[in-house]
Amino acid sequence: MSKYVIGIDVGGTTTKFGVVDKNGHILEQDRIPTNQHEVAEEFIEDLYAKVGPMIERAGGTQNIEGIGMGAPNANFYTGNIEYAPNLKWKGIIHMADLMERRFNLTTKLTNDANAAAVGEQIYGCAKEMNDFITITLGTGVGSGIVVNGRIVLGHDGFAGELGHTIIRPGGRLHKGTGMKGSLEAYASATGVRETAIELLTEHPERESLLRNYTINELTSESVYDCAMKGDSIANEIFEFTGQILGESLANFIMFSSPEAIVLFGGLTKAGPLLLNPTRKHMEANLLPIFQNKVKLLFSELKEADAAILGASALIWKLKD
Amino acid sequence: MSKYVIGIDVGGTTTKFGVVDKNGHILEQDRIPTNQHEVAEEFIEDLYAKVGPMIERAGGTQNIEGIGMGAPNANFYTGNIEYAPNLKWKGIIHMADLMERRFNLTTKLTNDANAAAVGEQIYGCAKEMNDFITITLGTGVGSGIVVNGRIVLGHDGFAGELGHTIIRPGGRLHKGTGMKGSLEAYASATGVRETAIELLTEHPERESLLRNYTINELTSESVYDCAMKGDSIANEIFEFTGQILGESLANFIMFSSPEAIVLFGGLTKAGPLLLNPTRKHMEANLLPIFQNKVKLLFSELKEADAAILGASALIWKLKD
Repeated sequence: MSKYVIGIDVGGTTTKFGVVDKNGHILEQDRIPTNQHEVAEEFIEDLYAKVGPMIERAGGTQNIEGIGMGAPNANFYTGNIEYAPNLKWKGIIHMADLMERRFNLTTKLTNDANAAAVGEQIYGCAKEMNDFITITLGTGVGSGIVVNGRIVLGHDGFAGELGHTIIRPGGRLHKGTGMKGSLEAYASATGVRETAIELLTEHPERESLLRNYTINELTSESVYDCAMKGDSIANEIFEFTGQILGESLANFIMFSSPEAIVLFGGLTKAGPLLLNPTRKHMEANLLPIFQNKVKLLFSELKEADAAILGASALIWKLKD
Repeated sequence: MSKYVIGIDVGGTTTKFGVVDKNGHILEQDRIPTNQHEVAEEFIEDLYAKVGPMIERAGGTQNIEGIGMGAPNANFYTGNIEYAPNLKWKGIIHMADLMERRFNLTTKLTNDANAAAVGEQIYGCAKEMNDFITITLGTGVGSGIVVNGRIVLGHDGFAGELGHTIIRPGGRLHKGTGMKGSLEAYASATGVRETAIELLTEHPERESLLRNYTINELTSESVYDCAMKGDSIANEIFEFTGQILGESLANFIMFSSPEAIVLFGGLTKAGPLLLNPTRKHMEANLLPIFQNKVKLLFSELKEADAAILGASALIWKLKD
């Protein structure tokens, strides 16, 4: 058995990758932008330009067991990325095949959020839990679900798209999917920005520090900065985001009754500003039998690490 | 090993029970009303009066392996029924203990809808499926979820309460739970009746055959009868019920990506009147990767049989 695995996390904006050993140590890591090219093959070339030298420094491909890869809408059973709304490559991409051909290494693919869930299970705060859900609050909203100790893949490998569940039927349009009122339309970095624009536009009479930003500068980070300074619209944005997220989490809990829900991704930097309203609305929408017993946690892993480690675990787990 | 098992299905209105052999044949069966008593012990006495003689006819307790019981809010791990909104017995009922004491037979308990799902898996249209969901559309809305071949119980045994997930936040009040906008508030026999009353009250100008019924006669059955006669309000009621159900099913599919959703219970008697709008709105709310591949089925088992067989399987399965 070889010493190392390459873990690759393909995010909506950034792709992170690293060389991982059996103990979950990342020897080195780097990143490239995800959506620079219309064609997946060119993305793989960018990746090869960075990962190739890493493999050489690790002693060449004979020291690498394989490549584990997490990506949006990726399918473990087929090795394909299929119709990912947040990626430029449209239709069905035979990612595992393309990677194997370029790198000459076994490649296993899964949903990026599933990979992160495996990372939490092996290295993070879901250690020794058999039933938990991870929710990534980034550019989009991803999810990985573990039931009876195993990732839920579903009959076709596509299970766990909780970001696209509808929580406000007929509500806000999600431009990537054309669906209305999905969790991701609200509880993502993009969603926070849209809520900000909506509130500022609908209430021209209300003063807000957010009015000092240009429309391009209005991001979840600037909303956070203003909320911390006591801005009432900025606080209302997180209250609303937490309400939508909390209502959705309540629904997920009544589905699989997890021991914990682990949140990670950029939005979690908002800390209690997001966590408090989320918990409040989650509890308020649960049947009594579920109340006050589901742990709502922030991941303790660095985001990049969790994704890379989780992706790498796809290979290690197959060797168990 | 004994020859028979007692299968008992405790429904919101009626409790059905029977003697079942290893091949899933029901030797005899009967039923009693569920909610005649404030105290669970008196219900158990009613049950004993009917089941006791059945056991005698089957050759006495030495021929009975145990009692499998499905009930709302029942917990496989603890043997308790906890805070069931549709039952008269409030708080925590130690049902398995009470049953074992009265019958002197091992008793295993699970959610009634989980029991029905096991029935479908062993004897029904979900044979050989590893990933499916059953939805009971009766007085309430129950659900049983199978992932990777196993019933989803969650960390505490309470998973699978899909009828209480919120599909219209801030929507119709569910009197039993105090929650607003849950699936059960709409897509149950009770919900259909409420939709009828709402539509008839809000549109006094619209003619409808439903106006010939007294308020007590307005049931899902009378709505069905009128819809079959072409009544436009009655048809609208099923269209709306199917919309709510379809939107909810889309959300469940994006959670666990089941091969099939199996519907059963009283409301399914409406057939295509319910199934067509349900399928339409289900597909319309799915990401493309999930569209046109999830089977939407009506159970082929007689409702009473599925529940009794499923409950009995709790005992047989433990002997596997």
